[in-house]
Amino acid sequence: MKIAAYLLLALSFLMMACNEPQTERAEWALALHGGAGTISKDIPDTLKQQYYDGLRQALRAGEIILREGGSALDAVEYVVRNLEDNPLFNAGKGSVFTAEGKHELDAAIMDGSTLAAGALTGLTTIKNPVTLARMVMEDSPHIFFSGVGAEEFANQTDVERVENEYFFTETRYQQWQRAQTDNASIFPKAEWTEGDYFGTVGAVALDKNGNLAAATSTGGMTNKQFGRVGDVPIIGSGTFANHVAAISATGWGEQIMRNVSATTIANYMEFTGSTLEQALDFVLTERLNPGDAGFVAVDADGNISMKMNTEGMYRGSIDSRGNRVVMIWEDE
Amino acid sequence: MKIAAYLLLALSFLMMACNEPQTERAEWALALHGGAGTISKDIPDTLKQQYYDGLRQALRAGEIILREGGSALDAVEYVVRNLEDNPLFNAGKGSVFTAEGKHELDAAIMDGSTLAAGALTGLTTIKNPVTLARMVMEDSPHIFFSGVGAEEFANQTDVERVENEYFFTETRYQQWQRAQTDNASIFPKAEWTEGDYFGTVGAVALDKNGNLAAATSTGGMTNKQFGRVGDVPIIGSGTFANHVAAISATGWGEQIMRNVSATTIANYMEFTGSTLEQALDFVLTERLNPGDAGFVAVDADGNISMKMNTEGMYRGSIDSRGNRVVMIWEDE
Repeated sequence: MKIAAYLLLALSFLMMACNEPQTERAEWALALHGGAGTISKDIPDTLKQQYYDGLRQALRAGEIILREGGSALDAVEYVVRNLEDNPLFNAGKGSVFTAEGKHELDAAIMDGSTLAAGALTGLTTIKNPVTLARMVMEDSPHIFFSGVGAEEFANQTDVERVENEYFFTETRYQQWQRAQTDNASIFPKAEWTEGDYFGTVGAVALDKNGNLAAATSTGGMTNKQFGRVGDVPIIGSGTFANHVAAISATGWGEQIMRNVSATTIANYMEFTGSTLEQALDFVLTERLNPGDAGFVAVDADGNISMKMNTEGMYRGSIDSRGNRVVMIWEDE
Repeated sequence: MKIAAYLLLALSFLMMACNEPQTERAEWALALHGGAGTISKDIPDTLKQQYYDGLRQALRAGEIILREGGSALDAVEYVVRNLEDNPLFNAGKGSVFTAEGKHELDAAIMDGSTLAAGALTGLTTIKNPVTLARMVMEDSPHIFFSGVGAEEFANQTDVERVENEYFFTETRYQQWQRAQTDNASIFPKAEWTEGDYFGTVGAVALDKNGNLAAATSTGGMTNKQFGRVGDVPIIGSGTFANHVAAISATGWGEQIMRNVSATTIANYMEFTGSTLEQALDFVLTERLNPGDAGFVAVDADGNISMKMNTEGMYRGSIDSRGNRVVMIWEDE
């Protein structure tokens, strides 16, 4: 019996030692997503590889900033810019088409340490919406601008402009043609294939100074009605950061909005004392329905959680403890 | 000693009996606000009386609906319509001027029993924005429309339209003239006088079926930049209702938004088990700064709480237990 007790004690110590690197606070951490939905596992290997490469490239953009002691705010902005510039994802270049055959972009960014935020909806000429969102945050007394007012705000800045056609890609054009025939944006869930209709990009980060930040950007919903505002630029729904956690959402915008999902995750964690992972589980199972959404999140200790109740979510994370993940489906 | 004990027992029963009507669930309850801010106690008695009358009239509009077994949703819509039509309040007729000398209106409505919601920003021709918000909620797969897209949505409905000049009032025009000289919307807090620059109307209700609803409407901020979206149409910030509580906010929009105030009140109550009043106190003291905002709220038991950290808030409430309150300042 005595030997068994000693063995148990030794085992306990061993387990504690093994777990230690994971329970220590990470110096910095970063997670990102490139959209959630029904993503077929049958997509060609070359395309699959392009997605993985895109996610890795974006992770590297953030890693360099955070490793060198840069701010979480810089990291999430540059990661999202990188994903906006990648035509594979529904944000910036490669955004989906509206019902009118144009591109209307939304974005938001939030600094968890100050609760400063910037958000935009209905952009038509801004190459990198997340960068203009940061300008709103830093240079305006307001948080959120829409449509023509947002473009007018942009006129006062040196943000890079493009023609609306810049956002065109052949793939999105074909999706829009299909969507027009089956009116997909009205009942989007039945139509989800390979993230065709939804899709968002986002990033969350903790920096070496302990500050959290979140950013999200999207081309919205394929065939969406003119002027529809989704969850992405809604502080509290698609994008949120405070002293507890930073969260970026992707999925069915209206479901994410009516549940004020991002802030509810942060509040659940803060008010119930649960872990970040438990908070994501709560919102994904108790508030949202299967197929609705996915989240990437990081807390003040550098814990990362990336969860969805959809079949897949393009996602990746990296932290100062050497964890590095790039995934699309639940089990890989 | 024995007599004292009996007396104590009798006293306890008496206290319980007296308190009973207050601790029982109210069959229905309604609270509303007409804006918060620094409201001078020196305003002329006749004007004061007009405000009280306006609040009472709006309360009556909701009381009739709820007493007859109507829905919380109908009650909040009709109360807010009533306040929109009253030129004293900054919503509908009597809305403030934008920096461009026009009127841009925002509104939102939310059904706590289904989490259905409708929201609009940048309306220019809709007589009663709250009614169009309800149409978005009921007739659209989307929740939120902005600007020209919102007007286009309206074109598909029979909602009552007006010229933008309909919203003109001499008082608001004078305020705008003053605001232009001191650029008041940039640093609004120093300029708060008599609710000149802010102001919102809102209502929350519980109906006999136990359903909660919230609605808010505003002309925004005097001299606001074109396209600025405030807290009112942001589900979770200015307006929120779920199975726990219904909340409508008023005050400095950006502060209300960055704290996702309405949902944080509902979350705090749900996740910590606190009362509605404690939840309002938490957000007003732990999250917001003095002078930022006020809230009216009702929970699923019909408890009403109306609190602000500003000097005054036009407000009123009524419930099936016979409580009836109309107030402007803290102590009256």
